[in-house]
Amino acid sequence: MRKDLGVLTAVFPMPVLMVASYDEAGTPDVMNAAWGMICDYDKIALFLAEDHQTTRNILNRKAFTVALADKAHVEEADFAGIVSAAAMPDKFARSGLKETKSTFVDAPVIEEFPVCMECELAEVIDTPNMYAVVGKIVNVNAREDALDENGKIDITKMQVLTFDPFKAGYYVTGPQAGEAWRSGKVLMEKEDKE
Amino acid sequence: MRKDLGVLTAVFPMPVLMVASYDEAGTPDVMNAAWGMICDYDKIALFLAEDHQTTRNILNRKAFTVALADKAHVEEADFAGIVSAAAMPDKFARSGLKETKSTFVDAPVIEEFPVCMECELAEVIDTPNMYAVVGKIVNVNAREDALDENGKIDITKMQVLTFDPFKAGYYVTGPQAGEAWRSGKVLMEKEDKE
Repeated sequence: MRKDLGVLTAVFPMPVLMVASYDEAGTPDVMNAAWGMICDYDKIALFLAEDHQTTRNILNRKAFTVALADKAHVEEADFAGIVSAAAMPDKFARSGLKETKSTFVDAPVIEEFPVCMECELAEVIDTPNMYAVVGKIVNVNAREDALDENGKIDITKMQVLTFDPFKAGYYVTGPQAGEAWRSGKVLMEKEDKE
Repeated sequence: MRKDLGVLTAVFPMPVLMVASYDEAGTPDVMNAAWGMICDYDKIALFLAEDHQTTRNILNRKAFTVALADKAHVEEADFAGIVSAAAMPDKFARSGLKETKSTFVDAPVIEEFPVCMECELAEVIDTPNMYAVVGKIVNVNAREDALDENGKIDITKMQVLTFDPFKAGYYVTGPQAGEAWRSGKVLMEKEDKE
């Protein structure tokens, strides 16, 4: 039996994206965004409100970074989503996070977060159904302890946060349940047997 | 120490979205898509290739559904991502999934998946940086066993799949790590003490 629940933002999991930017004076800011996703092999779309300081910074500096938040920094990650830089001018300093300027784009790389996409502003999409800031990913950097022995990002080496929109919880990832392009092969093979 | 890794689609977690649609003849199809996200309170954007059968179906029928895949159906979910309806005309039947037509939109609701968004096609966005099918969510339905005692979707009652783009793994969700708009309050209060 299924129940109708009305209109909900029913995507799960959502990522916990830390969007970092500089304002006109070079002051770093970071915000927490769940509504963002890869939209092409080298692009990321962020669905941010137009009136965020982050949005203004991105339009101004033509660049931003997007990092994945981890459990060790859940307080900092959530704080970045509660407070606006307008309401608390020392927001970034207060977070305790450390940043250095990206060598690729005009935006901060936050040391604490394990994986960071460095993006140039590619386009702002503004239609009746979508306001999106689209970034071209020009590099990804990661903490060495987030990499496996072959230098690949290994999500089992960090505790990346997941956002639950139904009850506003942050979760970490649990056990592996399958492999893409492999788990379904049993149903391909079914064909051959019949 | 951080390492530069080049251009990667470095969002984690990604959802495992089951996009279901009917073709012109009313034959159901389902595909597996990781690149999709809520883009407004009643909208979802799917970044699908234009040449997918699903994309053609959505443009034609002006509707689709998006369900969350769970661990109990990891084989079916992955199969939907491996096989095209063009290559295997009985793809849906072979998956073993059961569907009924949505009462809200002209698209299939798959019984097995715990949560399903029923969407009308709102817009196709086609720019140099994004090809997106945007749906207006007109209803969400869920299996009763995915709801808590108050009738709210409870992600701890299902094992929703998560996609790892770095190594193509499917994972389930682990323990809760915090609460949005609460975990960061400790850093707000820091202000008052200083």
